Amino acid sequence: MKTLGYYNGDTAEICDMRVPMNDRACWFGDGVYEAALAANGVIFALEDHINRLFRSASMLEIDVPLGKAELKELLVSLLKKVESSVNFVYWQLTRGTADRSHAFPENPKTNLWVTIKPFTMPDLRQKIKLITVEDTRFLHCNIKTLNLLPNVMASEKAKKAGAKEAVFHRAERVTECSHSNIHILKNSVLRTAPADNFILAGITRAHILQCCPVLGIKAEEKAFTITDMMTADEVFISGTTSFCTAADHINGIPVGGRDPGLLKKIQDFLLDKFNKETI
Amino acid sequence: MKTLGYYNGDTAEICDMRVPMNDRACWFGDGVYEAALAANGVIFALEDHINRLFRSASMLEIDVPLGKAELKELLVSLLKKVESSVNFVYWQLTRGTADRSHAFPENPKTNLWVTIKPFTMPDLRQKIKLITVEDTRFLHCNIKTLNLLPNVMASEKAKKAGAKEAVFHRAERVTECSHSNIHILKNSVLRTAPADNFILAGITRAHILQCCPVLGIKAEEKAFTITDMMTADEVFISGTTSFCTAADHINGIPVGGRDPGLLKKIQDFLLDKFNKETI
Repeated sequence: MKTLGYYNGDTAEICDMRVPMNDRACWFGDGVYEAALAANGVIFALEDHINRLFRSASMLEIDVPLGKAELKELLVSLLKKVESSVNFVYWQLTRGTADRSHAFPENPKTNLWVTIKPFTMPDLRQKIKLITVEDTRFLHCNIKTLNLLPNVMASEKAKKAGAKEAVFHRAERVTECSHSNIHILKNSVLRTAPADNFILAGITRAHILQCCPVLGIKAEEKAFTITDMMTADEVFISGTTSFCTAADHINGIPVGGRDPGLLKKIQDFLLDKFNKETI
Repeated sequence: MKTLGYYNGDTAEICDMRVPMNDRACWFGDGVYEAALAANGVIFALEDHINRLFRSASMLEIDVPLGKAELKELLVSLLKKVESSVNFVYWQLTRGTADRSHAFPENPKTNLWVTIKPFTMPDLRQKIKLITVEDTRFLHCNIKTLNLLPNVMASEKAKKAGAKEAVFHRAERVTECSHSNIHILKNSVLRTAPADNFILAGITRAHILQCCPVLGIKAEEKAFTITDMMTADEVFISGTTSFCTAADHINGIPVGGRDPGLLKKIQDFLLDKFNKETI
């Protein structure tokens, strides 16, 4: 298959998949998700992603219908059905299928959705443009939910401005991007927002924080401001599909580019980790 | 038919309807909706609901695929297919069907969803219990979107507490409920939160404000606090399905019940309006 769509055991190309209208994703965005990259039949950092899915589900009292090992096994077995060797693997849990009513259905039976599609690795030497957007999202950004309208609107705004990502900020405080985390380097120190309810604690963000002591970089999990960002030595985003990509412009103003050596060390560490674990 | 599900021209009982997995409702909750009551083939306040749908869609740059008159006609024609005479009519627009990617798809073709199901009119003499819940929602509550997770969680919390609705508040300021507006009467004055981005400007709320001059009631669109609510003469919620229903307890504490005459005038006005327009 070129792509794979899966819903509670049924499979087809994603574009041919149909789901019940009464799945609570359709009325409320009542679900949580994860996305990971896979190469050569291995899903990168799968354990981290599955742990986070279970945390997200638990915070919204969504029952996970299978164990961690079973879910892993299922995802890896589905990956085998797709022809390409590098893939984007996405899966979500939704709070059952029931007549539309806000409160939970009686004995909800969680639905499991999976999509797998080919992915092209990004060229991390390519710098990106960012824009800033006021962060008007809810106060549950630590949960990876399907309530993504502000993220959609911010992404579209970035796209229209010829930028790759939108940086959310609450007043002066930078939180994260519409679908990635953001970090700065200043005087050889890495600074990233703390993992509170204003950001999603990214898996790639965690890998970056893990690599800092190895690379001899001091890391601070401390919120930074727009001014900090505009005057940083390097500004870079991280995420499952973006790995660790540096920005050269924010709102059309040149940023970063003053510590390319340190930036490259982090990028190399992440790529190396990905390549080693997906051989 | 007992119920009707409609999706871009296809119809079936709601529970038998299937929609494409790639509808953007499924990944992002990327859509807007409306719900109205119908009796005897007439959809109550349909013009108001359709106008609000167009406003919601416009704020999210979702193209409405048909004109207002055409949409009205379609909904009324679908209503004819359902056996019962009193129905709940729900419809939503979602931003097309496309490979999952946050920014808008190229030339999105909006999807139109409709569901119609039998409805039992509430007994407005029956008072309800409320609980309070911190309002952690996004800052776009003025748009009737499918991003309803905080509303789902609050509704469930109310249900578990044996209450009918959850009252959202931002610190001391009361905003609205999880799927209705809330108002108070104090010294014969009606007070309701202003129609800013913290609340959805309810159609029933608008009808209540319209009835005030007719009934000789002074109305103020001004935010009130939890203390104002707990000490009000009457506390009542309004919405498409709740009309105008008074509360007798909030968080287990007795409230209201001190101006039943004025409350009943408002309730009678609304029921009368509904009955007259749906004969």
